[in-house]
Amino acid sequence: MKKIINQVEAVVDEALTGLVRTFPQYLIRIPQSRVLARAYPKPEGRVGLVSGGGSGHEPAHGGYVGYGMLDAAVAGEVFTSPTPDQIVEGIKAADRGAGVLLVVKNYTGDIMNFDIARELAESAGITCAQVVVNDDVAVEDSLFTTGRRGIAGTIFVHKIAGALAEQGASLKEVQAVAEEVIAHVRSMGFALTSCTVPAAGQPTFALADDELEMGIGIHGEPGIARQPMLSARQLADALLKRIAADLGLHAGQHVAALINGLGASPLLELSILAGEVAHWLDQAGVVLDVMWTGEFMTSLEMAGASVTLLPLDDRRRALLLAACDTPALRQGLRHD
Amino acid sequence: MKKIINQVEAVVDEALTGLVRTFPQYLIRIPQSRVLARAYPKPEGRVGLVSGGGSGHEPAHGGYVGYGMLDAAVAGEVFTSPTPDQIVEGIKAADRGAGVLLVVKNYTGDIMNFDIARELAESAGITCAQVVVNDDVAVEDSLFTTGRRGIAGTIFVHKIAGALAEQGASLKEVQAVAEEVIAHVRSMGFALTSCTVPAAGQPTFALADDELEMGIGIHGEPGIARQPMLSARQLADALLKRIAADLGLHAGQHVAALINGLGASPLLELSILAGEVAHWLDQAGVVLDVMWTGEFMTSLEMAGASVTLLPLDDRRRALLLAACDTPALRQGLRHD
Repeated sequence: MKKIINQVEAVVDEALTGLVRTFPQYLIRIPQSRVLARAYPKPEGRVGLVSGGGSGHEPAHGGYVGYGMLDAAVAGEVFTSPTPDQIVEGIKAADRGAGVLLVVKNYTGDIMNFDIARELAESAGITCAQVVVNDDVAVEDSLFTTGRRGIAGTIFVHKIAGALAEQGASLKEVQAVAEEVIAHVRSMGFALTSCTVPAAGQPTFALADDELEMGIGIHGEPGIARQPMLSARQLADALLKRIAADLGLHAGQHVAALINGLGASPLLELSILAGEVAHWLDQAGVVLDVMWTGEFMTSLEMAGASVTLLPLDDRRRALLLAACDTPALRQGLRHD
Repeated sequence: MKKIINQVEAVVDEALTGLVRTFPQYLIRIPQSRVLARAYPKPEGRVGLVSGGGSGHEPAHGGYVGYGMLDAAVAGEVFTSPTPDQIVEGIKAADRGAGVLLVVKNYTGDIMNFDIARELAESAGITCAQVVVNDDVAVEDSLFTTGRRGIAGTIFVHKIAGALAEQGASLKEVQAVAEEVIAHVRSMGFALTSCTVPAAGQPTFALADDELEMGIGIHGEPGIARQPMLSARQLADALLKRIAADLGLHAGQHVAALINGLGASPLLELSILAGEVAHWLDQAGVVLDVMWTGEFMTSLEMAGASVTLLPLDDRRRALLLAACDTPALRQGLRHD
């Protein structure tokens, strides 16, 4: 295992330190915790948004803390849910007196620990609500999940719920829009190589030189099929066919797409995939209103990518395009 | 070779297509060319800024086209200088009647082709000036260069010269500030793995499982030494010692740092390196005013990173922190 690290045990703490040193204008770290919170909290009386999960998915989730998105992000060990006490710290940091929405990805460990944390926070007087993201159409049930897994579609949930929270909506309204996004957002990914969990020291799985894993999870969980390598056009087609079928996507619909690198695949390749996704949607008569291409929800240094589609109506589009200002996503801001 | 591509020959064109589909609010492609230009050009009477070089360094250079940075970026084949006719197209796209500054990295092929392009553009009536970035302290002369190579420090040149050009400074002034940055900026990198040039189909070099290449170039050119793997702290120390010695860095100086991933190293690891760089500078009594951490100037899917330092005075700091709005770098913008 060759990684830019010191001790394996220190990976998460040291990465948080480096993030705060890089983005002091956005992030503070709550003392004695693995919680990153806004350096400039939103005004009192606004709904707070907390997300989190295992580390190894950077820039998720600390990279989305800031204006228009999250108020706090809680980092667990690599690919391991944060503990309830840490999540409670995140909830406290996010609380501005109007309740806190927790955005959880559908993994058994995360659900359990966020449930406990929510109860603890509520007994301390903070009203909480929770949504569970399960956008991965590849598999029902898997190594760490009952039901579908939550993957990169989570970023659209952060963005849209975060925009509404910033506008001053109630906890019920913010929860409802998050659930609306979850009901519509669908993703699927593939891997060209495995990742290596630092504490394990060796790759989670092995793929031959001409082989890919279709439907991969963001922790290296198995997908649907190990199959011969495909071209970028074939990859886009394989992912989009399945996503479109699940969504009942049809000509004339408007969508947002997220082309998400899993870690090692460079922007050159992600851009080619983005072009193919756009071309596929053009051919299907689907209107691509928004596309984001880059690394949003990674799986350590795995090579590969996922594609996410979110059908848009006017309100979801407006919230998706609303200004945000975070380490990993800045848009709709003004100069002059 | 496993990559998310179609035909090897189409890689650059298809990546440009995907970039424009992702960032239509920033980028247009000049027809029949490999030039990306601003979707919303700056006002007439301002100095234009053109950069470019081989592809494979994404988000460089197209990702830096936009407000406060470049006006046009010219993409060559992977790791190959763009041809003079393409560079001329870039100059024309950037020209707003006040002259155009070309930012070139110090590689023999780039220098030659930008020289020819500059002459062609000047004979067509566009006043041009050129600066050559040579920030890599690792080696004097190398496979593709006489003198030092230009690597990630180029991003600071784009940023500072771009900010001054946006303010309406003259070509002489913009050239002078770019040369001032070049005189001060220093970088060095290391690789944990090779990259694979698509047309070659196999890795440029091989490293053992416990080995790194110190002083690597951004095209896989050899560095100073092949040596046993180091910790993040040792890596920061090795790079910064050499950079600091070259700069004559001393306590009390203010600097900007760029922690640049070469492609496959995830943000988790880059953040750990960033924390170590910050710690090293703290210990040396050097004041870290600005740090950027991420992928700015990559080398396809190479694992590894480079560190860049730029000593700051008040003017360079202000220009570095000035607002910019490009696909790859957005800062200093306003909401509300």
